[in-house]
Amino acid sequence: MHSGERRRAAWRDALANIIDNADTRAGRLFDVLLIGAIVLSVVAVMLDSVGVYQARFGATLRSLEWSLTVLFTVEYVLRLVAARSARRYALSFFGVVDILSILPAYVALLVPGAQFLLIIRVLRLLRIFRIFKLARYLSEASVLTTALRASLAKITVFLAVVLTLVVVIGTLMYVIEGPEYGFTSIPTSIYWAVVTLTTVGYGDIAPKTPVGKALASVAMIMGYGIIAVPTGIVTVGLAQAQATRRSDRTCPRCGLERHEPDARYCRRCAQALPETSASSDIT
Amino acid sequence: MHSGERRRAAWRDALANIIDNADTRAGRLFDVLLIGAIVLSVVAVMLDSVGVYQARFGATLRSLEWSLTVLFTVEYVLRLVAARSARRYALSFFGVVDILSILPAYVALLVPGAQFLLIIRVLRLLRIFRIFKLARYLSEASVLTTALRASLAKITVFLAVVLTLVVVIGTLMYVIEGPEYGFTSIPTSIYWAVVTLTTVGYGDIAPKTPVGKALASVAMIMGYGIIAVPTGIVTVGLAQAQATRRSDRTCPRCGLERHEPDARYCRRCAQALPETSASSDIT
Amino acid sequence: MHSGERRRAAWRDALANIIDNADTRAGRLFDVLLIGAIVLSVVAVMLDSVGVYQARFGATLRSLEWSLTVLFTVEYVLRLVAARSARRYALSFFGVVDILSILPAYVALLVPGAQFLLIIRVLRLLRIFRIFKLARYLSEASVLTTALRASLAKITVFLAVVLTLVVVIGTLMYVIEGPEYGFTSIPTSIYWAVVTLTTVGYGDIAPKTPVGKALASVAMIMGYGIIAVPTGIVTVGLAQAQATRRSDRTCPRCGLERHEPDARYCRRCAQALPETSASSDIT
Amino acid sequence: MHSGERRRAAWRDALANIIDNADTRAGRLFDVLLIGAIVLSVVAVMLDSVGVYQARFGATLRSLEWSLTVLFTVEYVLRLVAARSARRYALSFFGVVDILSILPAYVALLVPGAQFLLIIRVLRLLRIFRIFKLARYLSEASVLTTALRASLAKITVFLAVVLTLVVVIGTLMYVIEGPEYGFTSIPTSIYWAVVTLTTVGYGDIAPKTPVGKALASVAMIMGYGIIAVPTGIVTVGLAQAQATRRSDRTCPRCGLERHEPDARYCRRCAQALPETSASSDIT
Repeated sequence: MHSGERRRAAWRDALANIIDNADTRAGRLFDVLLIGAIVLSVVAVMLDSVGVYQARFGATLRSLEWSLTVLFTVEYVLRLVAARSARRYALSFFGVVDILSILPAYVALLVPGAQFLLIIRVLRLLRIFRIFKLARYLSEASVLTTALRASLAKITVFLAVVLTLVVVIGTLMYVIEGPEYGFTSIPTSIYWAVVTLTTVGYGDIAPKTPVGKALASVAMIMGYGIIAVPTGIVTVGLAQAQATRRSDRTCPRCGLERHEPDARYCRRCAQALPETSASSDIT
Repeated sequence: MHSGERRRAAWRDALANIIDNADTRAGRLFDVLLIGAIVLSVVAVMLDSVGVYQARFGATLRSLEWSLTVLFTVEYVLRLVAARSARRYALSFFGVVDILSILPAYVALLVPGAQFLLIIRVLRLLRIFRIFKLARYLSEASVLTTALRASLAKITVFLAVVLTLVVVIGTLMYVIEGPEYGFTSIPTSIYWAVVTLTTVGYGDIAPKTPVGKALASVAMIMGYGIIAVPTGIVTVGLAQAQATRRSDRTCPRCGLERHEPDARYCRRCAQALPETSASSDIT
Repeated sequence: MHSGERRRAAWRDALANIIDNADTRAGRLFDVLLIGAIVLSVVAVMLDSVGVYQARFGATLRSLEWSLTVLFTVEYVLRLVAARSARRYALSFFGVVDILSILPAYVALLVPGAQFLLIIRVLRLLRIFRIFKLARYLSEASVLTTALRASLAKITVFLAVVLTLVVVIGTLMYVIEGPEYGFTSIPTSIYWAVVTLTTVGYGDIAPKTPVGKALASVAMIMGYGIIAVPTGIVTVGLAQAQATRRSDRTCPRCGLERHEPDARYCRRCAQALPETSASSDIT
Repeated sequence: MHSGERRRAAWRDALANIIDNADTRAGRLFDVLLIGAIVLSVVAVMLDSVGVYQARFGATLRSLEWSLTVLFTVEYVLRLVAARSARRYALSFFGVVDILSILPAYVALLVPGAQFLLIIRVLRLLRIFRIFKLARYLSEASVLTTALRASLAKITVFLAVVLTLVVVIGTLMYVIEGPEYGFTSIPTSIYWAVVTLTTVGYGDIAPKTPVGKALASVAMIMGYGIIAVPTGIVTVGLAQAQATRRSDRTCPRCGLERHEPDARYCRRCAQALPETSASSDIT
């Protein structure tokens, strides 16, 4: 192996340590700075959409956006270099988010056009998804994810029931109230049914006939009640995820399970417990 | 037995295998195609109700609807033939849904008339209930059904309390606010009470007097709080359904199901129970 | 004891058996007829308040109301006679409801006057509370009542926090938005805060200024989240009420607790269990 | 030590006993009177903001406010005297609340000016926070606080997800619906997303385009469903807080609290634990 190659490999390892490793001090500092830059960029995109602010701070916002774009471009290149497989990173979820959020600025230079530009500019907001990278700092996130994943099948059943209800109630209201009271088509009536069943209740469409009001009342009470179902599902799922997390270890002497995460000795026989399996929380 | 009869029986068995059996490959393929046709037909009914689409794609939608009606008619006849008892299938829930969703197209040929036709056409949407036949693919659905059935009595008590509250609050608001502020009658006021207690809040009727606003505030806080009751009921029911599901043993003498995981004898007839099957999904 | 007195006592016992005892056939029939009459009277009061129906069926409704009033008057007198202590019944909750719901009709004969009569008439709706007498048919009601009673102190703490939040947020919005945007006074702003925090959201008052919208967003997310607290309280309370209900009995041989309500034999040792303590569910 | 100093110390102890000790009769009486005065003052501030009442009872309200201000000033001075460290009290949360709620009246004497005065006056409402001092009477409050503190990390994850969702959905709607339908800027659209996801639904801004309505429907169903997550978190947290409350033992060597009910040895230092106190409130 050439010494140049070896040196380059060491340099890449050091870089990867800063960019990807949340355990080193440099890695944490990098994360904090990055999140700061992302929040700044998100706020800039938001302010840019408010007429008053754009008129007053337009130039500042534009130069800020350009500085951040350069910064994120450098970061993207560094990530490509530091990654074990540049191709794999570029095609990963965060790789796509990263490129999508820096491209718009460059595209806007080449292609003019107001409405198109708007959509392009908003893509920069995708950076907000980066915040989920912080999940590695919170082991709590893994309990939530486990619980939700375990509840997925039941939640799908629930969603199917809700969708069917919404279609049936919406169609009934279309027949009962009809276009003269705002229920202009079945899709619009289904939209009303969603607004009602989820207890949002804008009031832009509301039943006017007595029969329509009666059916709407039934829909509301159903919507009010069936929220209990996903809640029950997630609660039971969370209780189990929490319980299995605790029973991760078994006492080697007396066999007692379900030790608290911070336990070092068995609470029944005072035997020293094995270490918790390393932070394999999020993959 | 004549060989012709036997051949016919074998043919019926093969058909029943495709139509009703979710375990064979042909059965699963049939289910997938059927659901596809149903979704297509539901979407067609919806689009048909939107003025713009009807004007533009009216002819396409009508010919699509006719093709699907012919398809579902063939399916209905096949089901009648494949069923052990054709009469029993025809009178079952799904049998009625099946006939109700194909009849409208034929009736529409014979009887003209806009409003009547509308209701008739919408009947085709009933096909959406077929989707619940998919429940057999999801064992999760049975846990949910068990939990809800076990909670039924408690949920009935809860609904009775909610209905009483709604009648009392609605009547009080009718007396307090009166017709000049939109509370035109007791039924209308009860409708308002449902809208408020379920936290839907359209805003088409809203209290104007200070006393009315105070009572409405009390109603809102009650509605906000008592949602906790059905949620608690369903959560506890689900936790129990999940727990008893693990101990899926049946008493060999009296047939009682749902024994506790630690049960050794039937609690109804004192018969010794078989050992628990090892596959305990969660500990 | 005189034979006349004894006969009268026997007659009173028979009457009490019909009126108060849900275990005899006559008692159950009486309950069903009474509930029918109450529902009829409640529906009559409701229809009476709708202009269209009053104009068309006014005479019918009035004669129906008079028949029902005579019926309930007879029932009230019978209850007074059958009760062990007539005075105690007359002053009990249901005694007061009973008299308040028959008096209006007689008062209306003596005192004319539209608005006053309206309130008086609505009092007849109080009969709806009688429906809660049905609770004795549902042992489930007692589990709910136990759970809610056990959670009362925690729910009070929660309500105090919600009330404080509502006062503070309402006052802040009054200062931020001010009378020009509909927040005309602190009580009105507090009303808005209740409407928002409970996620009802009429939209009759809505923030217009950016700062107001930001604060409203915080209030909404708080209201959306803190509903979790009463739900958690009631769920934990219900789980405990359910558990204690099951552990009502102990196996006399092996001492095992927590037998299902329908258990006749101990599931661990097959010993016959003592009968469940008699239906002392609701007092 | 001079006898004067000693007498003064005794006088201070007696005062502290009344002001801070909820166990003595005098302390409880002081608390009740104080809460009465606070409620009176809060109601006065509220009524003062209603035009009608200010016009009619303005003079009464002003003199009531002055009496209460004098009363609270005396109380503040007494607290300063009774406190072990006057400085520490003055800088504590309740110390700051106390001074902020009496200052406005004096400031209003010196500085005139309507809008400024309004904000100043509203500060008096801060006294409402004093009500939380009552928490010491309710041991239930501590269970709730423990549960919420234990759930804090999970709730933070949940809030981060909700905030990201709200930003992404709001931005999408800004692009889809645009300024012509009320979605005038990204912050406004995010405000709409909060109103929708939390199921508040004012209806001041509502989607008009079909695509916008479809996205809004998805947002509503998400908002309707994800409320299950904090509810599950708090329920599981409460169940655990309730369970550990029973086993209220402390390790005599390392001071670790919250041992499981069946623990015999400290899980951190393997020290034998004291026996559980018999008073197990729920089995």
